[in-house]
Amino acid sequence: MSSNRDIDALIEMMAKLPGLGPRSARRAVLHLIAKRDLQLIPLADLMQRVAATARECLNCGNIGTTEICDICAAEKRANGQICVVEDVADLWAMERGHAFKGRYHVLGGTLSALDQVGPEQLRIPQLIDRVTAESINEVILALNATVEGQTTAHYIADQLDGRVTLTSLAQGVPIGGELDYLDDGTISAALAARKQV
Amino acid sequence: MSSNRDIDALIEMMAKLPGLGPRSARRAVLHLIAKRDLQLIPLADLMQRVAATARECLNCGNIGTTEICDICAAEKRANGQICVVEDVADLWAMERGHAFKGRYHVLGGTLSALDQVGPEQLRIPQLIDRVTAESINEVILALNATVEGQTTAHYIADQLDGRVTLTSLAQGVPIGGELDYLDDGTISAALAARKQV
Ligand SMILES: [Zn+2]
Ligand SMILES: [Zn+2]
Repeated sequence: MSSNRDIDALIEMMAKLPGLGPRSARRAVLHLIAKRDLQLIPLADLMQRVAATARECLNCGNIGTTEICDICAAEKRANGQICVVEDVADLWAMERGHAFKGRYHVLGGTLSALDQVGPEQLRIPQLIDRVTAESINEVILALNATVEGQTTAHYIADQLDGRVTLTSLAQGVPIGGELDYLDDGTISAALAARKQV
Repeated sequence: MSSNRDIDALIEMMAKLPGLGPRSARRAVLHLIAKRDLQLIPLADLMQRVAATARECLNCGNIGTTEICDICAAEKRANGQICVVEDVADLWAMERGHAFKGRYHVLGGTLSALDQVGPEQLRIPQLIDRVTAESINEVILALNATVEGQTTAHYIADQLDGRVTLTSLAQGVPIGGELDYLDDGTISAALAARKQV
């Protein structure tokens, strides 16, 4: 394509990233070559540093650079509450909300008979252990409102039934959300949970 | 965001690439960390190799790894024809068409009074020199159908007037293109250039 093997290989690898395709990968690579000192070299260096240091927290599954992540290690975060999320991107989304001050547990996916993903593949046994070991009194199931997410939430709720308070995020219209853009399920849920003004 | 400085810096740099934004950059970085050995490390290595070797061809402005690029150096490509393009991405697009067998000249942009881009900033003097030095008989102006692209094409045409045959790519309906999705200018151009069936 570019008649250069390394450049072609770089475009091909970039094109496989989520969110990029062949055309945007070509643009990105030309952009990086044009900004070699300011972007290409620093980006390669950062990737190498992250490759050398990034690891999963042994306790919660978050990505960090230490055996136990900053959130698990933070003394000033509330104990007793665990927020369960499907993946690290969801944990980051919760953290951007600045509303939750407890601990997290990253499942690493959702249960799926089709893909042969059972509880053992999902860090669910570790969650059950943590509930006892860390004297947890509330587990917030912040799983996605998909069939798989809700199946997984039900499974975890069954396992923990009677041992902790189980909660899930409220469903409704997003702040600033326009009804016309919402799916029917969200509108139904928001209607069912309506509050007096 | 991730509470890790290097990971946050990596996300921030990725988010600046054309085609990516903050959300897709976060997804891409998590994807790369999850595939450290198969993707993150090879990608960092390729970036470093490309940073060390990629350079502009001194003759035509194409990106390659040698002073004179493979296309300029290829003996089996036709002499006498130069296809003028705005940037390397357009050269690659032409090459994917496998239709042009001559040489290229990459301008590096378009003339713009607003952005103070004159002929000297655009490798236009080098094009004029090449026309004589390489005994060129046809210059194909493959510039984009934007105001800037066409202004630049007119300027080059003026400079080369009478010295070579000047051509431009035919305008019309793309193969497989649906009329309903085309802009009015394309439809007008295709109608004006209609052929008997
Ligand atoms: Zn942790
Ligand atoms: Zn060249």
